[in-house]
Amino acid sequence: MEPSRSSRSDEKETGRLEAFSDGVFAIAITLLILEIQVPKGLELGRLTPALLQLWPAYLAFLTSFATIGIIWINHHQMFELLRRSNQTLLLLNLLLLLGVTFLPYPTQLVAEYMGHPDESVAVLVYTATLLLIGVFFNLLWRYITLNPNLLHSNADHETVDALSRDFRFGPLFNLAAMAVAYFSATGSLLLILGAAVFFALPRKR
Amino acid sequence: MEPSRSSRSDEKETGRLEAFSDGVFAIAITLLILEIQVPKGLELGRLTPALLQLWPAYLAFLTSFATIGIIWINHHQMFELLRRSNQTLLLLNLLLLLGVTFLPYPTQLVAEYMGHPDESVAVLVYTATLLLIGVFFNLLWRYITLNPNLLHSNADHETVDALSRDFRFGPLFNLAAMAVAYFSATGSLLLILGAAVFFALPRKR
Amino acid sequence: MEPSRSSRSDEKETGRLEAFSDGVFAIAITLLILEIQVPKGLELGRLTPALLQLWPAYLAFLTSFATIGIIWINHHQMFELLRRSNQTLLLLNLLLLLGVTFLPYPTQLVAEYMGHPDESVAVLVYTATLLLIGVFFNLLWRYITLNPNLLHSNADHETVDALSRDFRFGPLFNLAAMAVAYFSATGSLLLILGAAVFFALPRKR
Amino acid sequence: MEPSRSSRSDEKETGRLEAFSDGVFAIAITLLILEIQVPKGLELGRLTPALLQLWPAYLAFLTSFATIGIIWINHHQMFELLRRSNQTLLLLNLLLLLGVTFLPYPTQLVAEYMGHPDESVAVLVYTATLLLIGVFFNLLWRYITLNPNLLHSNADHETVDALSRDFRFGPLFNLAAMAVAYFSATGSLLLILGAAVFFALPRKR
Repeated sequence: MEPSRSSRSDEKETGRLEAFSDGVFAIAITLLILEIQVPKGLELGRLTPALLQLWPAYLAFLTSFATIGIIWINHHQMFELLRRSNQTLLLLNLLLLLGVTFLPYPTQLVAEYMGHPDESVAVLVYTATLLLIGVFFNLLWRYITLNPNLLHSNADHETVDALSRDFRFGPLFNLAAMAVAYFSATGSLLLILGAAVFFALPRKR
Repeated sequence: MEPSRSSRSDEKETGRLEAFSDGVFAIAITLLILEIQVPKGLELGRLTPALLQLWPAYLAFLTSFATIGIIWINHHQMFELLRRSNQTLLLLNLLLLLGVTFLPYPTQLVAEYMGHPDESVAVLVYTATLLLIGVFFNLLWRYITLNPNLLHSNADHETVDALSRDFRFGPLFNLAAMAVAYFSATGSLLLILGAAVFFALPRKR
Repeated sequence: MEPSRSSRSDEKETGRLEAFSDGVFAIAITLLILEIQVPKGLELGRLTPALLQLWPAYLAFLTSFATIGIIWINHHQMFELLRRSNQTLLLLNLLLLLGVTFLPYPTQLVAEYMGHPDESVAVLVYTATLLLIGVFFNLLWRYITLNPNLLHSNADHETVDALSRDFRFGPLFNLAAMAVAYFSATGSLLLILGAAVFFALPRKR
Repeated sequence: MEPSRSSRSDEKETGRLEAFSDGVFAIAITLLILEIQVPKGLELGRLTPALLQLWPAYLAFLTSFATIGIIWINHHQMFELLRRSNQTLLLLNLLLLLGVTFLPYPTQLVAEYMGHPDESVAVLVYTATLLLIGVFFNLLWRYITLNPNLLHSNADHETVDALSRDFRFGPLFNLAAMAVAYFSATGSLLLILGAAVFFALPRKR
């Protein structure tokens, strides 16, 4: 990408990249609900227990919602520091979005197979997807920090380093969740949900 | 979030928060239609009565459309007064969006179970979801009013107070709708639809 | 809505209204494809005829795509002239979006019932929905022309009048399509598709 | 479209066109995952093989994701050079979006029919759709280059010519993929995926 072109319309370029990413995040987070099936053909008084029995679907929905929400918040923080984009950044961002658009599938897998003898397989696929998303996210951020000309001039080292430290926790949590999945599928989901809430909480730096 | 960063790009930050929220509102309101099933395998002359019999699905669609529409209008009014955001605001806004993305599920529940002996369970879940959305909305607005530094300098007290009064009606209406659901599922839906129209009508202040 | 507030952030207000509307248009137009079912459980050599037999689904998809596309283009032209919005405008715009989000349902009805003895019922529901959308569109535009303070100061009378003439054709075409539906369901769809293409073609004024 | 109107709000006009297109791209790319069905009713230990057997669905998902991603990147590059739009441009852009919104259907066809005796039919429909999208894309770009008044004044000939050369490869690759589909459905998909990755890779000019 030649300097003349990229220097002309930097703001607009980043703007559209954010708009497209926001669109994908917003759609992926809203599609999650389609995974929960309304119970059908029930007799009198059976709806309440049928709804309660769907708790794994609610837990999977909540965990994926929290995960995509936190990724969006972090993506937001990352792009706040960004002054311009290039072809490589577009690609690495697409890789991240690939993981996010795939997430509704393992979410449905978990909703379907919790309580089933193969529940650990479902949760392993789910946590592996989260790990992949975490790796893609860190690849994107790593590329940005290695190309400081993409950053705003007033993006100070401290902020960049603080984000690097935060973002690295993601894949570690996900690896831990994969390990826990062998022993307890529910425990693994709760760990992910807890990690998302922990990441989301505002904190002093 | 350190002052230097948040003071740099306030406008942009709020802009992307609104874009993401608008995306979620727009998708949730458009997904509602997927809940209505096209009747299949009918004989000659059976399509018209089959379509008429689906009135609970249309009523549920209309009620949820009106509800999300009104929430969007109110969200719009709220963010018009907002000058900047922070991590807590992002989180409270995500909570509100969690309720909105969940709404298509109880909507489908109502569409499926109106006329069924368990219709009151379906409407209770529906109205409880609306109550939760209303509470999340008021939490968000309360946080903003308690942190006036987030508001535009020219957001006058009168406007803020008028919105506070308006927004408080939502959960009250929803509580009333939950109570009515015990006696009449249809009446409860009509009350919600009426409340949405009432909230939507332009009024003098 | 008090003057002080609406005069402060007019541009932003219209911007978010357009963003939300664009979101709904974009989602509704993209959801249409979900209506076409992939044929399943076929033997060798049966896929090609099965795909060809789905022509009513393709025609319905194309007609609804063209319709929403044209409405978006017209909405775009309309809002180009708009300087600010108010509560009534938000509501009338929501009514238009209500029709647009509903459209995938009658589209699926047509895709399912073309060739069925009840095909005219399906096409009537479809054309009635289009008529409703056309009426809502004209209501919105009429409200704008009756409140010229909502318009940009340089929105000249000629442009406004030209749009008024154009927009009035919509409901007329849809009424004609409803009448034709009694005699030929396919003819009615082709008329709508033709009208959409006619409306879309660039023309001299 | 009279000069007075189009000269007034060029930036805004292009902005909304991009926003609508981004919305459609984002939704189409996110809907792809709905095509993959979660296997149901399995006995202990059958989930892993059932998931592995779904490889054609993953390949189709990946290929379509990469294709839409690359089209978005190219659309982005194209519109970066654009200064304003007109009615014809809106229409040609709608044609491109028509192809993109249709893509989830042949994607599902491929996911369903790979390994089936009719797999070549499915892949032919898929590659023909991609060819159509490529042709529409080139039509849009050709119209822009033939109307240089639509371009930014600093859009230099070299950049325009480089894009023209790049964009022409698309339909050629797709034609090749159609030919390969007769011999090997999987080979055809891999060729398309390879082409998308090739197009995506940043390169020196």
